[in-house]
Amino acid sequence: MLGSTHGTLTTDSRRARVIACGEQPAPAVHGRPADTDDLDVSGRPLYAGVPELDRFFRPESVAVIGASDAEGRPNTGITRQLLSWAERVGARLHPVHPTRQSVFGISCVPSVADLPEQVDLAVLLVSDPLPVIEELAEAKVKFAVAFASGFAETGAEGAAAQARLAAAVERSGLRLLGPNTNLNAFEKFRDDLDGPAIALITQSGHQGRPVFTMQELGVRLSHWAPTGNEADLETADFISYFAEQPEVGAIACYVEGLKDGRAFMLAADRAARRGVPVVAVKVGRTETGARTAASHTGKLTGADAVVDAAMRQYGVIRVDGLDELQDTAALLARARPSSADGVVVYSISGGTGAHFSDLATEAGLPLPRLSDAKQAELHQWIPEYLDVANPVDNGGHPVGDWRGRKIIDAILDDPAVGVLICPITGPFPPMSDQLAQDLVDAAEETDKLVCVVWGSPVGTESAYRDTLLGSSRVATFRTFANCITAVRAHLDHARFTASYHSPFDEAPRTHSPSYRKAQALMRPGQQLSEHAAKQLLRAYGIRVPREQLVTSAAAAVRAAGLVGYPVVMKASGAQLAHKTELGLVKVGLTSASQVRDAYRELTDIARYEGVSLDGVLVCQMVDPGVEMVVGVTQDELFGPTVTVGLGGVLVEVLRDTAVRVPPFGEDQARAMLGELRGRALLDGVRGRPPSDLDALVEVVLRVQRMALELDGELAELDINPLMVLPRGQGAVALDAMAVCR
Amino acid sequence: MLGSTHGTLTTDSRRARVIACGEQPAPAVHGRPADTDDLDVSGRPLYAGVPELDRFFRPESVAVIGASDAEGRPNTGITRQLLSWAERVGARLHPVHPTRQSVFGISCVPSVADLPEQVDLAVLLVSDPLPVIEELAEAKVKFAVAFASGFAETGAEGAAAQARLAAAVERSGLRLLGPNTNLNAFEKFRDDLDGPAIALITQSGHQGRPVFTMQELGVRLSHWAPTGNEADLETADFISYFAEQPEVGAIACYVEGLKDGRAFMLAADRAARRGVPVVAVKVGRTETGARTAASHTGKLTGADAVVDAAMRQYGVIRVDGLDELQDTAALLARARPSSADGVVVYSISGGTGAHFSDLATEAGLPLPRLSDAKQAELHQWIPEYLDVANPVDNGGHPVGDWRGRKIIDAILDDPAVGVLICPITGPFPPMSDQLAQDLVDAAEETDKLVCVVWGSPVGTESAYRDTLLGSSRVATFRTFANCITAVRAHLDHARFTASYHSPFDEAPRTHSPSYRKAQALMRPGQQLSEHAAKQLLRAYGIRVPREQLVTSAAAAVRAAGLVGYPVVMKASGAQLAHKTELGLVKVGLTSASQVRDAYRELTDIARYEGVSLDGVLVCQMVDPGVEMVVGVTQDELFGPTVTVGLGGVLVEVLRDTAVRVPPFGEDQARAMLGELRGRALLDGVRGRPPSDLDALVEVVLRVQRMALELDGELAELDINPLMVLPRGQGAVALDAMAVCR
Repeated sequence: MLGSTHGTLTTDSRRARVIACGEQPAPAVHGRPADTDDLDVSGRPLYAGVPELDRFFRPESVAVIGASDAEGRPNTGITRQLLSWAERVGARLHPVHPTRQSVFGISCVPSVADLPEQVDLAVLLVSDPLPVIEELAEAKVKFAVAFASGFAETGAEGAAAQARLAAAVERSGLRLLGPNTNLNAFEKFRDDLDGPAIALITQSGHQGRPVFTMQELGVRLSHWAPTGNEADLETADFISYFAEQPEVGAIACYVEGLKDGRAFMLAADRAARRGVPVVAVKVGRTETGARTAASHTGKLTGADAVVDAAMRQYGVIRVDGLDELQDTAALLARARPSSADGVVVYSISGGTGAHFSDLATEAGLPLPRLSDAKQAELHQWIPEYLDVANPVDNGGHPVGDWRGRKIIDAILDDPAVGVLICPITGPFPPMSDQLAQDLVDAAEETDKLVCVVWGSPVGTESAYRDTLLGSSRVATFRTFANCITAVRAHLDHARFTASYHSPFDEAPRTHSPSYRKAQALMRPGQQLSEHAAKQLLRAYGIRVPREQLVTSAAAAVRAAGLVGYPVVMKASGAQLAHKTELGLVKVGLTSASQVRDAYRELTDIARYEGVSLDGVLVCQMVDPGVEMVVGVTQDELFGPTVTVGLGGVLVEVLRDTAVRVPPFGEDQARAMLGELRGRALLDGVRGRPPSDLDALVEVVLRVQRMALELDGELAELDINPLMVLPRGQGAVALDAMAVCR
Repeated sequence: MLGSTHGTLTTDSRRARVIACGEQPAPAVHGRPADTDDLDVSGRPLYAGVPELDRFFRPESVAVIGASDAEGRPNTGITRQLLSWAERVGARLHPVHPTRQSVFGISCVPSVADLPEQVDLAVLLVSDPLPVIEELAEAKVKFAVAFASGFAETGAEGAAAQARLAAAVERSGLRLLGPNTNLNAFEKFRDDLDGPAIALITQSGHQGRPVFTMQELGVRLSHWAPTGNEADLETADFISYFAEQPEVGAIACYVEGLKDGRAFMLAADRAARRGVPVVAVKVGRTETGARTAASHTGKLTGADAVVDAAMRQYGVIRVDGLDELQDTAALLARARPSSADGVVVYSISGGTGAHFSDLATEAGLPLPRLSDAKQAELHQWIPEYLDVANPVDNGGHPVGDWRGRKIIDAILDDPAVGVLICPITGPFPPMSDQLAQDLVDAAEETDKLVCVVWGSPVGTESAYRDTLLGSSRVATFRTFANCITAVRAHLDHARFTASYHSPFDEAPRTHSPSYRKAQALMRPGQQLSEHAAKQLLRAYGIRVPREQLVTSAAAAVRAAGLVGYPVVMKASGAQLAHKTELGLVKVGLTSASQVRDAYRELTDIARYEGVSLDGVLVCQMVDPGVEMVVGVTQDELFGPTVTVGLGGVLVEVLRDTAVRVPPFGEDQARAMLGELRGRALLDGVRGRPPSDLDALVEVVLRVQRMALELDGELAELDINPLMVLPRGQGAVALDAMAVCR
């Protein structure tokens, strides 16, 4: 009965089929026509349609395969629940069972073929849904739900069974929810609530229960999709569908494993374009993401960091606890967009206001100081000796009379204010009752966000249960942290939505001229030499030092003359790592004799160490700058990812990196730099000049292009270090490593 | 009526008087006899007695100055509440009022002098308590409580009035609570609860309400001290007193400002020695701590970081929200010490277990894998295909019958397990009812900690309200985060208590031989030259490079010969900063002629820049190592503090430092290094050898000694960089800066 962990089988997104069922044209807001064959240069889709799920959630006719009314059988309870659900939504229900004449008084047919009409939805209560799929397809059933467990969640054998089921479903043309799912979609939703609703998607039905239960607290829920093992319909499908439903204010997800990274991004992109917030718990914070990577950045890019980045790129709000999921989704579903983002803390106690403001400020909420004029206005009702700059301390008494509402309205009337938060630490009836009522009344008359933190741990007080929870316009919290998390999510999402440009609109569809040059350098299955890897970079317009590969001391001297003294010399060979540690790098050589000696020494060391060389590199010395690393790593779920980090000690010791999933634009490349803890280094510290950020961003974007175009050929790439010179002087890849597939 | 922010006046702890009232001998566990004149070398107390507050909380007789029974007067309500409280605790109450004959039928005396008996406690309902203090002292009243506001919380004038009040109280010999406090100490506490209790200390009464209200949920509260402005009795006094009360299981504090750093540390030390957990909200996370500091470490040491460090040194658990204060204090009050610290997550859904385990692991809770034998035992009752390694997934069904209790007992019986956490995501009566009951029953029969996270947002379910909250042995939470915070606090506190050694037992009481040498170098009000600052370090046995201060080129060459080539030369002078940027440092000089040229160049630059020199330093070149910074900064509340950080880029960009308040031992000096994010640098990265940590710790301890001994004379000290050489080779202060008071 209760969901176990779910066996989502990961799909390689390059082979992800474009959703075939019920395609809808992309809405005009997309800025380009729907084109289901639209692929980026890596072969991944740039567009996904919205599956037509209206008849899934509101079918006209339903078949229950394996229906029962026999006492004590598990299917009997399920059949009963389906019956009452069908009645509520006005669907005709047809029991199917090989031997029964009738079920709960409704006449029963022995098989799918005998159904009296074409049904929209078939609920499969049989232990093996596979043989039924073909029958359903023949009967032109649109949707099926498979409850059975024992698939990918149980191991390799189950995974194979699930793959067979998925293949049958794909052949059939119907859409399947499950297996290993349950009745959650067919529960009784409260229909007496209005205003924007939460739509819920959970892989484990059990984990969705708290959000469902919020209906008892007056939070409207419009849909619940328990996706189970996602053999066919997956989280992304429901995100796309819910983002198009007018009653949905926010989408709440509980995700154990994503099935297809690109499908998820396209769905989140749809929600982002439409401004519908998606709040998600994604299990896997502690996924180590330890992979077999030769590159530095590869080792530093964890699987969970990639999921985190993909979510952030599309404005998906990731939270940890189910309580945070509830509180954040409820606020985002109901909050209206506001032009102002200033947060004011209002309380009946200076201590409470100062305490809450301290925590809110630390969490990054903007608490503007109210204008002198506004403060003077507030002092009409609040004694002069109390501080009303923000936090606003009313001293207690004014909330008990007509002044209370005046104060709230005056705060909300301030154009700098977008959010009013009132922590009500202890209930002091009747004062707190009136305060709660005033907040509820004021919230009805404003588009701005009004939040309350109800501090009493009891939670049965009438001001809380009836007044505050009775309002769909006040967001009421039980903990400081959840209030701050939700308000920050609201402000962040508003800012994100306002400046969102879909990266899919600008993603490259065709190969650049660089591609052919690059292809010629690839050596399938091998690690390229430093020299070859740098040629690859050069092909994509990334600057590398002037350098020549030589195989004799005399040639080295000639090369040094061409490159220009002083020079650096390095041993070069495929698979060659730890050059510096082995003494295979010589810097600052200023004369022909030094170059000759260096050549001899490098080749001697290589011989001694048993290292095979393709030659010695004679390279230009590059001026000092800030050392960075930039790399490409393959993620199982998302394909190639691009990582940037601070080089040297910072990347060694602090693993100070940022990652993005292509396609992404310049805005995201710049945002990556903002995520680095050691970011200030790039801005110039200790009197050093600011670095050429534009050049760094350009390198990141060119590496992205390379990652997409060479997706089938390039396993890993690492530029380490990329020397970022002072502003206006560019960035140079001093060393590079590339592994071909 | 409601508390505003509170005006605690900070006391210089060197002048902090040793608590005079009701001294108790230190308990035998202290290992040394009580000695109220026991001071450390900086003149700060090493011991504080426990104020005798029994008669404050349980007086035999109480006077109410300004008592009233006139309709509509605020004092009437207060008098009424005091009357019923006095009745409950069995105290005789005497109203005092200049004109009334009786109050609520009790005969009233016109002044304190006319009281019929010596009273333990006087509650002052008058607007100016100052004139009454002397009368109370003459009447030998032990305690007074002042409700009046308008003191330090209102500004400079109020602060002066508060200082006068404090002085009068100090002269009087009585102890005062307040001003700007309230009735919280005299509220009606539930007396039907047993087991260990929370004792509560709050500066704002309003902010203590949620913890007080937890009594309605069955959490026992023994005391509430609303300290207000702390003109006399302060948070530290109540921590000391509560730590000695047998019924107190944990102390919960809400602190806006600490009055005296040392008094707080001594009180926290008492609680630490007795193993009584102290959980505190301390407002001020966003205190920037921007101070006028010449030293690098001074600028990096924020006021809040110092409070944070002081709390951590004595095991005080700092939390943010009032909900965290409640949940953490309630758990710590009731949890019993356990020998094991393994946490097992047990749930009826694999998804729930995996999700909770993910978050718990990320937060650092130890989730051991259960032994094969234990897993086999659990599989007697749990189907074989479910994972029971930890998290333990029972699949749902076993909780509904006799197996449920067996499973819980088997988990708790595992010697590796100290904590069982069961997230109950959704109520599924009757299954969840039985699960709750089994957990409550099992918890009664074990000393191990049993926690539940009740996931339903409703919170009126009987399994929650009656079964779980009805148990004093199960800790029940409403959010994932608060459960994890509280369990981690419990495990951390157990570990802290087990290894705690009071630093006050080993703090230096007398000057070391270094002190006289150091004193001779001090120049009041001045910044010392690099050379003088290094002499100071040398006086305390901290290694500096061989160096000589010279004032001619010829002397420089002689010095270089003595120091040994290669040498470094630096301009030296008081107030001289940014030497490197100005070109006033020359490194790697290998010959007499280079030394002569360098001397000329340095003095030329100094002349050109208008910098006055006391000479040029000729210094030994030191081998490369890891650059650190170590410094001393003065904190308003705590006196001198010691900071250590990673040098170079890490300290510039990441402000990667750790701070401690003396006195502290070697354990804390080592713990400081563990707090550095760039700590791995010291362990050796990229093939570099591990650093001499022992030498670094030794430098930190010697700097501490210097900070204590020179407390009156040294304003700031900065060693930057301290070069920490490979293990066994020591650490050398390459540059130093000292500012005298």
